[in-house]
Amino acid sequence: MRRRSHWAWGYADEEPSAADVAAAAGLMAAVTGLKLDGVVETPAGLPEPPPPRVAPPPFTFCTTDPYERISHTYGQAYRDLVRAFRGRFDGPPDVVAYPDDEHDLIRVLEWAENTGVAVVPYGGGTSVVGGVEPRDLGPSVSLDLTRLDRVLEVDEVSRAARVQAGMLGPAIDRGLAGHGLTLRHFPQSYEFSTLGGWIATRAGGHFATLATHIDDLVESVRALTPRGVWESRRVPGSGAGISPDRMLLGSEGALGVITEAWVRVRPRPVHRASAAVRFPSFERAADAVREISQAGLYPSNCRLLDPVEARLTSGGDGTYALLMLAFESADHPVGAWMDRGLEIAGSYGGTWDEVRTGGGGGQGGGQGGGQGGAWKDAFLRMPYLRNAYPAIGLVAETFETAITWDRFPAFHAAVTGAVRDALGGAGIVTCRFTFTYPDGPAPYFTVLTPARRGDEIAQWDGIKRAAGEAILAAGGTITHHHAVGRDHRPWYDRQRPDPFAAALRAAKAAVDPAGVLNPGVLV
Amino acid sequence: MRRRSHWAWGYADEEPSAADVAAAAGLMAAVTGLKLDGVVETPAGLPEPPPPRVAPPPFTFCTTDPYERISHTYGQAYRDLVRAFRGRFDGPPDVVAYPDDEHDLIRVLEWAENTGVAVVPYGGGTSVVGGVEPRDLGPSVSLDLTRLDRVLEVDEVSRAARVQAGMLGPAIDRGLAGHGLTLRHFPQSYEFSTLGGWIATRAGGHFATLATHIDDLVESVRALTPRGVWESRRVPGSGAGISPDRMLLGSEGALGVITEAWVRVRPRPVHRASAAVRFPSFERAADAVREISQAGLYPSNCRLLDPVEARLTSGGDGTYALLMLAFESADHPVGAWMDRGLEIAGSYGGTWDEVRTGGGGGQGGGQGGGQGGAWKDAFLRMPYLRNAYPAIGLVAETFETAITWDRFPAFHAAVTGAVRDALGGAGIVTCRFTFTYPDGPAPYFTVLTPARRGDEIAQWDGIKRAAGEAILAAGGTITHHHAVGRDHRPWYDRQRPDPFAAALRAAKAAVDPAGVLNPGVLV
Repeated sequence: MRRRSHWAWGYADEEPSAADVAAAAGLMAAVTGLKLDGVVETPAGLPEPPPPRVAPPPFTFCTTDPYERISHTYGQAYRDLVRAFRGRFDGPPDVVAYPDDEHDLIRVLEWAENTGVAVVPYGGGTSVVGGVEPRDLGPSVSLDLTRLDRVLEVDEVSRAARVQAGMLGPAIDRGLAGHGLTLRHFPQSYEFSTLGGWIATRAGGHFATLATHIDDLVESVRALTPRGVWESRRVPGSGAGISPDRMLLGSEGALGVITEAWVRVRPRPVHRASAAVRFPSFERAADAVREISQAGLYPSNCRLLDPVEARLTSGGDGTYALLMLAFESADHPVGAWMDRGLEIAGSYGGTWDEVRTGGGGGQGGGQGGGQGGAWKDAFLRMPYLRNAYPAIGLVAETFETAITWDRFPAFHAAVTGAVRDALGGAGIVTCRFTFTYPDGPAPYFTVLTPARRGDEIAQWDGIKRAAGEAILAAGGTITHHHAVGRDHRPWYDRQRPDPFAAALRAAKAAVDPAGVLNPGVLV
Repeated sequence: MRRRSHWAWGYADEEPSAADVAAAAGLMAAVTGLKLDGVVETPAGLPEPPPPRVAPPPFTFCTTDPYERISHTYGQAYRDLVRAFRGRFDGPPDVVAYPDDEHDLIRVLEWAENTGVAVVPYGGGTSVVGGVEPRDLGPSVSLDLTRLDRVLEVDEVSRAARVQAGMLGPAIDRGLAGHGLTLRHFPQSYEFSTLGGWIATRAGGHFATLATHIDDLVESVRALTPRGVWESRRVPGSGAGISPDRMLLGSEGALGVITEAWVRVRPRPVHRASAAVRFPSFERAADAVREISQAGLYPSNCRLLDPVEARLTSGGDGTYALLMLAFESADHPVGAWMDRGLEIAGSYGGTWDEVRTGGGGGQGGGQGGGQGGAWKDAFLRMPYLRNAYPAIGLVAETFETAITWDRFPAFHAAVTGAVRDALGGAGIVTCRFTFTYPDGPAPYFTVLTPARRGDEIAQWDGIKRAAGEAILAAGGTITHHHAVGRDHRPWYDRQRPDPFAAALRAAKAAVDPAGVLNPGVLV
């Protein structure tokens, strides 16, 4: 049984070697041009957690094992990675529970309610917003759902599957592969994130248009609350009042524990076309993406990198923005779609070397070929690369948002400017579009800067604060697909309407009167 | 100033003449083959309502005028039409308010909260589920929002518009036409329904796929609650917790009064292709619609009529099912899309005479041509035809639902069988698909039967009860796009998850502690 690393992305046997770290240091210095300090730190090892503050419940599926408690303390944000690398685990959960089924889960909820212990649902632990961290809580149990790991039913006619919430991304697709189907939801956390986690956080997936969030792939949801089962009917659409599913989507474990869902699945694509399109400027490229997004073509990929990001990640030379445009279908050749997409791109000065077409392939789907292929590989390997950053003293983190097209140019300037000011000259900020809508893009920013050794958390929090303030002031949302968790509360609380917040607090109190479900997120 | 009829669909000057009614009687008898009794009743005229049970507030925009009170009593269900035709107006509102702006609206809400008067938001009054009827309430005010009737802003870049909630469908599109844009949301109630009503009831519109509900066209919503303004940020997408917009969509006036929204608009289509495809059976046609729905083609129209419905409304001879398939685009010719759609249709035995292509035109959009054109005209005229039914003794009503494809055949048999049993042999039940999804269709049933004169409400309620029970037992939803209102409560209350109901009740109490907002709907 392979163990996940207690501090790094991936399994313990994948933690970066000294050679990996040295290579990363050289690579990142060369690629970014940032002056790193040349120091190489080593990870602190597994610390001994403080004794549990509560006696664990007498269930065989619960543990107070130090490794389990430590490795369930954080998610996978940069600030989590740095703290874990340094051996600093603030407030680990007192107990870790691994329910095998809903019966076990109910017993944990009852125990927690009776003892006043906070329950923090934990899927793959890939939150980047403090969603799984029992921060500033009293006694807590981390409710690890990864033993709810089966595909329970597949309906090939309706193309839907009933899947348990604790399944990791690859396992879901393995479970569907025998039916020739896939969920095709590929967040960057795919390898270690779960269906339940995606639903609870409204995760973004693979598609640049249409089914951008897991929301669009959900047919019905089943959750356990301290006041019973919250399960919707399995129908393709309904207008019977407020959607009960939409109240669980984004509920972040505060209303109930999602145990399973019917999700919409599809055959693997067999027709594909993709092209890497270069633009003389990010602005022109953004205009092209806008028109493509408004054309009703629905590309599977429409990922735009600004010139610096194209240089850093996709073989660009820094002089052009790069659009990865792809269409895919399990039903029909997509040439007509691609032709029109490229026609639009060309009208904004876009140029490309070739259009790659062909059948199915890797899960990155449609990004294959040329510079696009480089991106695909980088996409899924990125979390592993990050493991080296604390050692080499590189602050590397992202934040993402959404804004309407009319405001995008001013928004981009304001947010980039605010982050540059916060960086004080020593760092890089880049922008890409990961998802795009007829009415606006979801800009995704990356920040790279030399670390202030030992002070990285404050350093990053300062940058994040500047970014969050700029986003709110310029009209964006504090997150398009990374959820609120605990890290986004300061901006979320100002962003949401007050009566909605009152309604949400009351709704939570109705189904979780003891307030044990993930206290601190959302409300 | 034209007045709406107090009992019929349309304006008072459009009420059916004696000749209209006689023609309708002959036509319906001939087309349906039903034995009508030959009696022709005349409408009862405007009755005198009981005196208001509450003194109206001292606002100039409030009235107790008998016509206003009577004409704000009901929606447009068949059971409403019959009662109004007979002059039976159960429990009219005591006051009708016509706020000119949010300031007026706040004054009404404050007055209502202080005096304990129920507030029933009223858009165009086209609810078919008792949503605007102050049924079994104490003193009530009908809050008519149709003076909130302006397009406030148009963002041509992002293709979005800020529209006041009381605008009727045609006025919205007139307001956008100068910008070359349209909302393109065409429920059958288009002429007399409002944006706010659509949002409050999650109305279905024009598109058979993708943007089926108004939900998909909403960028942000503003509502007034007794505890302040509930307004979301205007962004193309957000993952910041549970969506505040999705809690207003389908809230049916129970959480707040929607005053305006940013909606996604689009240019009028300039490329169109449509075909009327005949199938030897409804079953084969349904299979074709399933495959088209799962192909990623996204037709604008994909409306399937069973053989009887094709005969009754679209010139069929009763031997074939009829699919109106259409694609449209403002950006590109849609030949490739239509070719593949018809290829699929053909593989299930579908045949067609011609594919009509061309540019923009009427609002029915894409349904033009041949039998499709007949449907388009009938679609928007249908509410007027219904005006004659009480006079000629015809019960004619619809109900609609949604179900996954795997269960559709058994579902269709069960629901049709239950309704036939309730009809006792003397009547017709037909089925069409109005909206379709990769995982299932939204079947729409029409029932026609000779009226039991004077007992039509009980007669229809018996049929509806049989249908509702069959829908719930067979796994459907009590409504796909007609909302819950008061008529659907018996089934809605059993359909929704109990903890969700508890959450909803608590949410309502938080923003409407006096419980004055549309009591009786949803909770």
